[in-house]
Amino acid sequence: MKKEHVKQLEEAIKAVKEIDVKKFYFVACGGSMALLQPAHYIFDREIDISAAIYSSNEFIHRNPKILGKDTVVILCSHSGNTPETVRAAEFAREKGAVTIAFSNLEESPLLKAAEYGITYDYGKEALASESNNGMLYRLVFGILNSLAPKEKYARALKCVDNLQGVYDRNKSNTKGAASEFGKKYKREKLVYTLGSGAYYGVAYSFTSCLLMEMLWINSNAIHSGEYFHGPFEITDYDVPFIIIKGLGETRPLDERTHAFCQKFSEKVVVIDAETFDMEGIDKDLRGYFGPLVAGVVLRQYADHISEHKGHPLSVRRYMWKMEY
Amino acid sequence: MKKEHVKQLEEAIKAVKEIDVKKFYFVACGGSMALLQPAHYIFDREIDISAAIYSSNEFIHRNPKILGKDTVVILCSHSGNTPETVRAAEFAREKGAVTIAFSNLEESPLLKAAEYGITYDYGKEALASESNNGMLYRLVFGILNSLAPKEKYARALKCVDNLQGVYDRNKSNTKGAASEFGKKYKREKLVYTLGSGAYYGVAYSFTSCLLMEMLWINSNAIHSGEYFHGPFEITDYDVPFIIIKGLGETRPLDERTHAFCQKFSEKVVVIDAETFDMEGIDKDLRGYFGPLVAGVVLRQYADHISEHKGHPLSVRRYMWKMEY
Repeated sequence: MKKEHVKQLEEAIKAVKEIDVKKFYFVACGGSMALLQPAHYIFDREIDISAAIYSSNEFIHRNPKILGKDTVVILCSHSGNTPETVRAAEFAREKGAVTIAFSNLEESPLLKAAEYGITYDYGKEALASESNNGMLYRLVFGILNSLAPKEKYARALKCVDNLQGVYDRNKSNTKGAASEFGKKYKREKLVYTLGSGAYYGVAYSFTSCLLMEMLWINSNAIHSGEYFHGPFEITDYDVPFIIIKGLGETRPLDERTHAFCQKFSEKVVVIDAETFDMEGIDKDLRGYFGPLVAGVVLRQYADHISEHKGHPLSVRRYMWKMEY
Repeated sequence: MKKEHVKQLEEAIKAVKEIDVKKFYFVACGGSMALLQPAHYIFDREIDISAAIYSSNEFIHRNPKILGKDTVVILCSHSGNTPETVRAAEFAREKGAVTIAFSNLEESPLLKAAEYGITYDYGKEALASESNNGMLYRLVFGILNSLAPKEKYARALKCVDNLQGVYDRNKSNTKGAASEFGKKYKREKLVYTLGSGAYYGVAYSFTSCLLMEMLWINSNAIHSGEYFHGPFEITDYDVPFIIIKGLGETRPLDERTHAFCQKFSEKVVVIDAETFDMEGIDKDLRGYFGPLVAGVVLRQYADHISEHKGHPLSVRRYMWKMEY
């Protein structure tokens, strides 16, 4: 690991250890919020301290009463420029919270606003273990191992080092399926996604950032458990669904959704984490690492639909083009 | 208030007071989960104790580590028969949590599973103050007033008594707009909803239960703050949006969304809580009571689209018709 990364993580973990944490907040917007979602899930399951996740502006205006010097606020913005997230960091810091922010850019407003900054690598040369998800998981398991040490957390930190190989193999293994998806679904105007537990964020990110933002395809990330309490009535033979079947504790929810949905829709695409090649990730930790792999696999699905549609993922009509 | 209602509330509030509450959980499915959402918001803002909301099956399988004898789990199911919510009550109770469940039916599995049951009235004869939202708000402000007494909470409890009049006047005031909506939008295949803060649950409920479940219209309840971080790229002149502009602290998020959305879509419908007749609700509490009124108003919008479409809200193709 790069020296500055080691130092950034050590300082942030030390700051958390120094207070008696009453609550962890994960705060970001859009894809960055979705990125933090598995961390929220892991904290909920592993530690006897409350955690919550909010979109940055909701967090500021909601102004939770508990926010103060015994809370930790973990934020993320790729550019470090997202105004709501910068304001959320300033707001939390004014309230006395320990603020830890992730960004690709060190010299960014977000990393200036937060007390502790963690930079992550990005681009073709970047290793997964020091990219956004890798660095986040280093922080998550680093905090857990500092507050309530377990050999499992130490092993999780080692697993992060193996992420690049896992990503590469699964990308390669699912290339054919992704291309088939792109060809078959390129004319769809609406595609629903489904997921639960640590995998809900991946569904949310695919819906909001890939389908709606980058491909202009209508969507809704439906929670697998909620599907049966309203949304499933929309199911019909020609309505497309992408179902993420996780590896974790909530997998039975995804299995139930899949079993029902495939009876009535002829357009069900399954991203099944059980079929992922997870060598290099310890068996008892695969549920937690699966969302990262699902994200990489789904990104490839988006790449292929983009290619078949002739609609580059970089095209925008509003974002970055005007004031909003 | 009916004697049994007074007694049910008193017993539940007393049970909460007797423990040192570490966390409140709101647990239900679909429309019942959405109903609990403003309560989560109010707790976040008013009290120095964590609160979280989960769909019943997510809650069980996620199995939060903090769940135990110093937690309170508040559940809801209209029929008291929702299997996931009944199991969630049993699960929480086995863990030692204080369980409080709302249902229309006293002799229901849910009210048998939970330690404390609160029945609410339903139907044309039922008064709003003793229906689902009214009874929930009595519990919420009752708990707050018991744990951290404030004259504001005592006033809130009095405002609940005035809900029926507020509902009736606002239903009457918005009948014309609802009918116009039904006529104009009856052929739409997709309608997005937007909301934030205490009003997000209303958007979620309208999307999941009214549009998708009852009307078979595609939808997604987009958080007003999240709209700008992906979903807004789907905005076009012919894409319909229902924007709920709340009265509370998060209203600026809704205003920003409205300002942008109306520039690029010619099909923007606004449910503006500022236009509601809130006489009978104290001014400083209108932000909290607004979601209940927005729900009543939107229900009327659904009634009218149903009528113009010739698709009764009672029609289902899967729900209650098969095993799932």
